[in-house]
Amino acid sequence: METEIGRGKRARRAYAFDDIAVVPSRRTRDPRDVSTTWSIDAYQFDIPVLAAPMDSVVSPATAIAIGRLGGLGVLNLEGLWTRYAEPESVLAEIRDLPHERAVRRMQEIYAEPIKAELITERIAEIRAAGVTVAAALSPQRTQEFYSTVVKAGVDLFVIRGTTVSAEHVSAQDEALNLKEFIYELDVPVIVGGAATYRAATHLMRTGAAGVLVGFGGGAASTTRATLGIHAPMATAVVDVAEARRDYLDESGGRYVHVIADGGLGTSGDIVKAIACGADAVMLGAALARATEAPGAGWHWGGEAHHAELPRGERVRVGQVGTLEAILNGPAHASDGTVNLIGALRRSMATTGYSDIKEFQKVEVVVAPYSGDSTAVIRSAE
Amino acid sequence: METEIGRGKRARRAYAFDDIAVVPSRRTRDPRDVSTTWSIDAYQFDIPVLAAPMDSVVSPATAIAIGRLGGLGVLNLEGLWTRYAEPESVLAEIRDLPHERAVRRMQEIYAEPIKAELITERIAEIRAAGVTVAAALSPQRTQEFYSTVVKAGVDLFVIRGTTVSAEHVSAQDEALNLKEFIYELDVPVIVGGAATYRAATHLMRTGAAGVLVGFGGGAASTTRATLGIHAPMATAVVDVAEARRDYLDESGGRYVHVIADGGLGTSGDIVKAIACGADAVMLGAALARATEAPGAGWHWGGEAHHAELPRGERVRVGQVGTLEAILNGPAHASDGTVNLIGALRRSMATTGYSDIKEFQKVEVVVAPYSGDSTAVIRSAE
Amino acid sequence: METEIGRGKRARRAYAFDDIAVVPSRRTRDPRDVSTTWSIDAYQFDIPVLAAPMDSVVSPATAIAIGRLGGLGVLNLEGLWTRYAEPESVLAEIRDLPHERAVRRMQEIYAEPIKAELITERIAEIRAAGVTVAAALSPQRTQEFYSTVVKAGVDLFVIRGTTVSAEHVSAQDEALNLKEFIYELDVPVIVGGAATYRAATHLMRTGAAGVLVGFGGGAASTTRATLGIHAPMATAVVDVAEARRDYLDESGGRYVHVIADGGLGTSGDIVKAIACGADAVMLGAALARATEAPGAGWHWGGEAHHAELPRGERVRVGQVGTLEAILNGPAHASDGTVNLIGALRRSMATTGYSDIKEFQKVEVVVAPYSGDSTAVIRSAE
Amino acid sequence: METEIGRGKRARRAYAFDDIAVVPSRRTRDPRDVSTTWSIDAYQFDIPVLAAPMDSVVSPATAIAIGRLGGLGVLNLEGLWTRYAEPESVLAEIRDLPHERAVRRMQEIYAEPIKAELITERIAEIRAAGVTVAAALSPQRTQEFYSTVVKAGVDLFVIRGTTVSAEHVSAQDEALNLKEFIYELDVPVIVGGAATYRAATHLMRTGAAGVLVGFGGGAASTTRATLGIHAPMATAVVDVAEARRDYLDESGGRYVHVIADGGLGTSGDIVKAIACGADAVMLGAALARATEAPGAGWHWGGEAHHAELPRGERVRVGQVGTLEAILNGPAHASDGTVNLIGALRRSMATTGYSDIKEFQKVEVVVAPYSGDSTAVIRSAE
Repeated sequence: METEIGRGKRARRAYAFDDIAVVPSRRTRDPRDVSTTWSIDAYQFDIPVLAAPMDSVVSPATAIAIGRLGGLGVLNLEGLWTRYAEPESVLAEIRDLPHERAVRRMQEIYAEPIKAELITERIAEIRAAGVTVAAALSPQRTQEFYSTVVKAGVDLFVIRGTTVSAEHVSAQDEALNLKEFIYELDVPVIVGGAATYRAATHLMRTGAAGVLVGFGGGAASTTRATLGIHAPMATAVVDVAEARRDYLDESGGRYVHVIADGGLGTSGDIVKAIACGADAVMLGAALARATEAPGAGWHWGGEAHHAELPRGERVRVGQVGTLEAILNGPAHASDGTVNLIGALRRSMATTGYSDIKEFQKVEVVVAPYSGDSTAVIRSAE
Repeated sequence: METEIGRGKRARRAYAFDDIAVVPSRRTRDPRDVSTTWSIDAYQFDIPVLAAPMDSVVSPATAIAIGRLGGLGVLNLEGLWTRYAEPESVLAEIRDLPHERAVRRMQEIYAEPIKAELITERIAEIRAAGVTVAAALSPQRTQEFYSTVVKAGVDLFVIRGTTVSAEHVSAQDEALNLKEFIYELDVPVIVGGAATYRAATHLMRTGAAGVLVGFGGGAASTTRATLGIHAPMATAVVDVAEARRDYLDESGGRYVHVIADGGLGTSGDIVKAIACGADAVMLGAALARATEAPGAGWHWGGEAHHAELPRGERVRVGQVGTLEAILNGPAHASDGTVNLIGALRRSMATTGYSDIKEFQKVEVVVAPYSGDSTAVIRSAE
Repeated sequence: METEIGRGKRARRAYAFDDIAVVPSRRTRDPRDVSTTWSIDAYQFDIPVLAAPMDSVVSPATAIAIGRLGGLGVLNLEGLWTRYAEPESVLAEIRDLPHERAVRRMQEIYAEPIKAELITERIAEIRAAGVTVAAALSPQRTQEFYSTVVKAGVDLFVIRGTTVSAEHVSAQDEALNLKEFIYELDVPVIVGGAATYRAATHLMRTGAAGVLVGFGGGAASTTRATLGIHAPMATAVVDVAEARRDYLDESGGRYVHVIADGGLGTSGDIVKAIACGADAVMLGAALARATEAPGAGWHWGGEAHHAELPRGERVRVGQVGTLEAILNGPAHASDGTVNLIGALRRSMATTGYSDIKEFQKVEVVVAPYSGDSTAVIRSAE
Repeated sequence: METEIGRGKRARRAYAFDDIAVVPSRRTRDPRDVSTTWSIDAYQFDIPVLAAPMDSVVSPATAIAIGRLGGLGVLNLEGLWTRYAEPESVLAEIRDLPHERAVRRMQEIYAEPIKAELITERIAEIRAAGVTVAAALSPQRTQEFYSTVVKAGVDLFVIRGTTVSAEHVSAQDEALNLKEFIYELDVPVIVGGAATYRAATHLMRTGAAGVLVGFGGGAASTTRATLGIHAPMATAVVDVAEARRDYLDESGGRYVHVIADGGLGTSGDIVKAIACGADAVMLGAALARATEAPGAGWHWGGEAHHAELPRGERVRVGQVGTLEAILNGPAHASDGTVNLIGALRRSMATTGYSDIKEFQKVEVVVAPYSGDSTAVIRSAE
C-alpha cells in the first residue's frame, strides 16, 4: 500500500484514529454481557486503562484512585513529585502562568534535581493503599534510579521516552542495554514509545511485558511541527499488534501487551485503539480532565519543558467530572469525554463482541472526519 | 476497494453524502413530468419522505400535517407524547435550557414512565385524521408495548434503534426474536438502523417490509466521538440497496424498501440518498426546521438523553418555513433547506430521470466538498 | 479510475481546479512572445475571455468595453436590461437589499416580463459600438425570442442554461430541437452548460460552434446543496476537451470550441481551465469585481431568483479595479484578481508555451489546496 | 503513480511537506553524536542553512551574523541594499505601510535603479568580516551585473528566479546562456528555482554546483492563486534528488547539491526537506523572524513588488528570538520556530542517523496534517 511521493522515494499512507471508524456488524449484544478486563503478568484490571506518567494526570493520590477504579496509575518519577517535597504550590504556579512565560518558567521549575528519597516515599504511599504500583523512568535516568525504584517496591516498571529503541547508540555515555536490564530485573517491564513494526519487534525481544505504542502524538505535543516526526496512531497500533502476533510465534508463545499511548482524547479514540489491536490504553488528556487531576484543568507532558528543545505545550483541557464519572459514568455530556468505559462497553455490544481480545478483530472503515455532513449543520448552531 | 491501514488490518474506504455528487447526463427532462411517488405494502405516498420519530419533529399534529402533504409521519412512542399527558410545557422547557444543563435535565424529563393509555390516545388522534398511521418503538420496548400499539391501530409498525440486528444476544433478558415477532404481526414492519450489507440482509430475512439505513449519523448525534462507530451514509445506502437486490433474488421476489435515515440535512442529501439506491428518506433535522415542528427551532434525538451515556446533543436548527414550504416550496432561500421535493424533482429532471426507481441508477462522482473553489470566494463575502 | 462507493455502485473521482496545479517544465519563454489570441467562426479575439450573461457583469456598456479590450461580452436577454427600460434603479435596489430579503425581492423584480423591443434596443446599442455582438437566451425562451434576436443582429448566439442537453424530453411543451434550430440559423451558436463527455458530444453533433462547460458551479451558486449535483470543473473540462477531439475525428474536421464556464475566480483558475483543454473561459465573479460592472461589487446569476427553487445567492465580491486592469493589468494586488491575462501570459511563458492551443498540453499535478504548508504561516499574520 | 483527472489527461499526485512525516525506526542515537555539517565546492558549513536573498532576511550585517553561526547568508543584489545607499528608512517605511497600500508603494520603492557601486560596497562589507560571501542576481540581470559582482569578490554566485531554465527562449533579447556563463565563470554557481526532474537535470548539465528546488512556494507567495502554478515541495525535492543521482552517473561523478528553497517554515519542514533528499535548505520566513532581521517582523520577496503582476504579499511573521536562538537554540517555545538545528539534530538522533547524507534515506509516511486528532483538543483551549 505504498505510494510514490516522487521519483525514487516511496511512502506508506498512515492513518490517524480520526481517519477511521468502527462499523456495526450482523450481531448485537447486551452491554451488560461485555467484559473489559485486562491482565498483564500477574496483575488483573477491571478496565484496560493506564494513566500516563504525566504531572497533570498522576499524583500518588490519583494513582491510588485510579487503581481503586480498576485501572493502573503510573507515577512519573522524573516529575514534580520526586523533585519537590511539596509540589502542590508548584503545580498551582504552573496552572497560573501566562501563556508567553509558560515554557520558560517550566524549564526552570523542572531544573530542580530529582531526589531518590522522594521516589521511595511516593512509591511507598501508593503501595500502602493496596493498589498495583507502577512507576516510570526515562531510559536516560533508568540506570541512575532503578535500584531505588525496585527497592521501593513497584509491581510494574515502566520505561517511557518519546522513542525508546532496543539499540541506542552513543559515543558519549554507556547506553542502557535494555535486554540485559530487563533480564536481570525481577519486575515486569513496560517499555516505549515505539511506533513501527520493527522497533516494536526489537523491544519485544528484550523481554518486555508490554510495549507502549506512540511517538509524542498526544494532545499537548508539537512533535510534528518541531521534529517533523509523526506516527499516526491507527497505523502504528495495527503495525505493533502484527509485531505481537509474529513475535508470539517466534518466541514460542510469549504474549507481549500492546498499549496505545497518545492521541486518545475521547472514548471513540479508545474504541478505535482496541479495534486496531491494542490490549490496553494509556490516557493523558482524557484523565487530566478529572476534577481530582493534579493539573486542575491544565495538561502538559515532559517534553513541554525540555531545556533546549521543548516539543509540547501546556494546554487547557478543562474539567468534565470525577475520575469515576470519566471512567465509568454516568455521563451528563455527549462529547466522548465522560463514561469512557461505558462507551467502550456499548461499542463492543453494538458490534456484537464480548471481550477486548475479540474486539481487536472488529471491522473498521476509512472515513476521514472532515467528510461528515453533520459538521455543516452543527456549525449553524 | 480495500486499503491497508497497517500490517495485517485492511479497511474499506467509506463515503459520506458530502463526498459524492450526482452528475448530469446526456438527456434532460421537464420537471413536471417527474414522479416522486412511493408505495410500501398497501400504502401509497406522493413523496418518499418519512418524518423521523423524534420529539422535535413529530407530534400527533405534525404527523397529520405530513400525511396530508403526501408523506408519512412516524410518532415516537417512547417520547414526551407518551410520557406526559400535556407535553407542551416540557417541550418549552427543553427549548429554553441553557447548554450546560441541557443533557442532565433531559435525562430527568425522559425518566418519566411511558403510559400505555397515552400510546392509545395519540395513535387514535392521528388515525382520526384519516392519514396513514405509523409509530415507532425501540427493540427494548417492543415486547412490552406492541399489543397496545397494534390494538390502537397502526398501519405501519416501526422498530428503530441505533443499531438493530436480527440476532441480538443477551444473557440477562430474553431478547426480542424479530423473525417470529414480524411473522406473527399482521401489520407491516419497518426496522433499523442497519448500516451494512450483512446486517441488512439479516433484517430482510426477518420479513420486514422496509429497512432503515443509518447508525446515529444525524445532525444531533455524537456517535462518532462517543462510540468510535460511524457508518458514512453514501456507502451504507449503496450496500443495503445491494442487499435488497440480492435478497429479492434469494426470496423469489420480495422487495424490501430501503429507507435512508440520518444525515439528510439538505435537498442535495436527499437527492444523493436516492441516487445511492434509497427508496425513501427519513428526515429529522430537515423537518425540525418547520415552523410547526414541536422543537420550535431545536432538534434532539433519543440518544441525547440516554441515562448513562448520552450520545447526542440538542442542536439549534432554526426555522426556515412551514412544513408545506419545506417539502413542496416555493423557496425564498437557496441553501437546500426549503422545497426539498421540488429540488429532488428538478435534480431528476436535469439528469433525465422520471421516477424514483430509475433515479437510483444515476451516475455519481467522488468529489469531496472541501475541494470546491467557490468556498474561497464565498468566505470573502 | 473508478472507485467503489459501496457494493454495486462505482464512481469516478472528479477534480476541481483547486485540486490541481500546473507544473513548470524544462523550458521557459519570454512573456512578450506569448500569444493569447482566440478565434471562433469568423470572429477573432485578443484574449480568450467571454463575459458571462449575468446582470451583475454584462450591461450594454460593459459588453462594449470588454469588446474593446479584446474579449467578448455576452448580454443576458432574460435579465434586467430586457425587462426594464431603465434598470439602473433596480440594480441599485438589489445591491442594497438586506440579506434576509434578497431572494424574495429578486424573485419579484425578475417577475417583470421580458420586452422584445428592449432586446432589439440593447443589441443595437452594442452593435453600434462596432464590437462583436453576442447575446444569450435560455433554451426555454429561445423559440419565443430568437427571431427578435437574429433580426436585431447578433454575431454569436448563446443558448445557456444550468444544463442544456441535445435531447430534452417534455410531455408538456414541444421542446426546442437544438439540431434543427442550429441548422436553420445563420448565426453560429454557443451552447451549454454541459459537464460530461457524452452530453458535450451530443451538443457538438447539433452543429454548435462552441460548448460551455459547467453546471452552475460559479461563485454565486448553491447547486450542490440544493440539487446534490456537482461537476468539478477540472474533470469536466478535460472530459469535454476529449469529446472535442473525438468529434473532430467523427465529423471529419469540425473543431468545436470548449469554453469553461463557472468557478473561475482567479487568474490561476483561468490558467488551469486552459491547461485542462479549454479554448476560452467565460467569467462571472472575476469581472463582477470591476468598477464598471453593473453589480457594483455584488454578483448574482439567474438561478438566484428562480421563482420556486432559487439555487444561488447574491454574493459580495467587492471591487478590485477597472475592467482594463482586471484583464490586462497592471496589478497592485497579488491575489489573482487583477491582470488576469498578464498572469495567463506569464504562466504560459514560465512553462515554455507560446499559444493557447499548445498550452492545453501542459503538465498538471494533483495537489489539493489545503495541503499547503504556507497556510499555516499566513494564518499567523 | 498517475491518476486520470478526466478522459485523456493524467496527472501525478504531488505532495507538500505537510502531507508527509518522518517515522522513527529501529535504532536511536545520542543527539551529540550527530553531524549537521555541509560542504559545497571548497566551502564548509557547520549547518546546512542558506539565508534566502530577500530584503526582509539578509542585510550585510545578517549575512555576516549567519556566516559566523555556521551558515551562509545570500545577499539579494537587486534589493534595497543595492538601490539605496541608506536603506534603513525605506525598510522602516515598508514595515509601516497599511495593507491596502503595501503593494503599490513597494512597486514604487523598488523602481529605484540598482547601483553597481553599491553592489561592490555591500559585498566588500561582508567579505571584510571573513565569512563566506554569497550574492544573488536574477537571470534577467546577470549579464548586466555579473562582472561587478565577480570583481567585488564573491565565493558563491547565486542565480535565482521563480523558475530558471537552462533553455530560455526569447525573440526579444538575447537570453543568458547559462552553460557558457557558468563554464567561463571562476566562481561556483548555485541556480534555481527548478521543481521537476527534467528542469533540474538540465540545470545540472550547465555545470552548476547547486540547484535551488522550489517555485515561489514560500510563506509570502501567492503563485498558486495568480499563476495556477504550484510545485508541492516534498515531491519536488524527491524528484530533483533523483536527478542528482542520475546526473552523478551520467557525469561520471559530479555531485550537484540540492537545496530546498521555499515553504520551510518550521524545523519540522527542514527535517522533511532533508528526508526527501535535500543537501541543504534555503530559509526565508524562518529567519525573517529573528530580532536582527531587516524586516523587523515582516517578510516579503521580490515577487511582492513586481511592477505588473505582483505574486506575493508582505506578511507579518513576528519575532521569536535572535538568529542564534533560531538556529542553535535554546528554545523557550515549542512551535518549531526556534532551535531549528537542535530539532534537526534530535530528529536525526531519534531515527538513528548520524549525518545529513544518511538521513536522506530515512523512512517517511503520507499522513496529511488535517487528519490529526490532536487538533480537536487544541482548539478547545
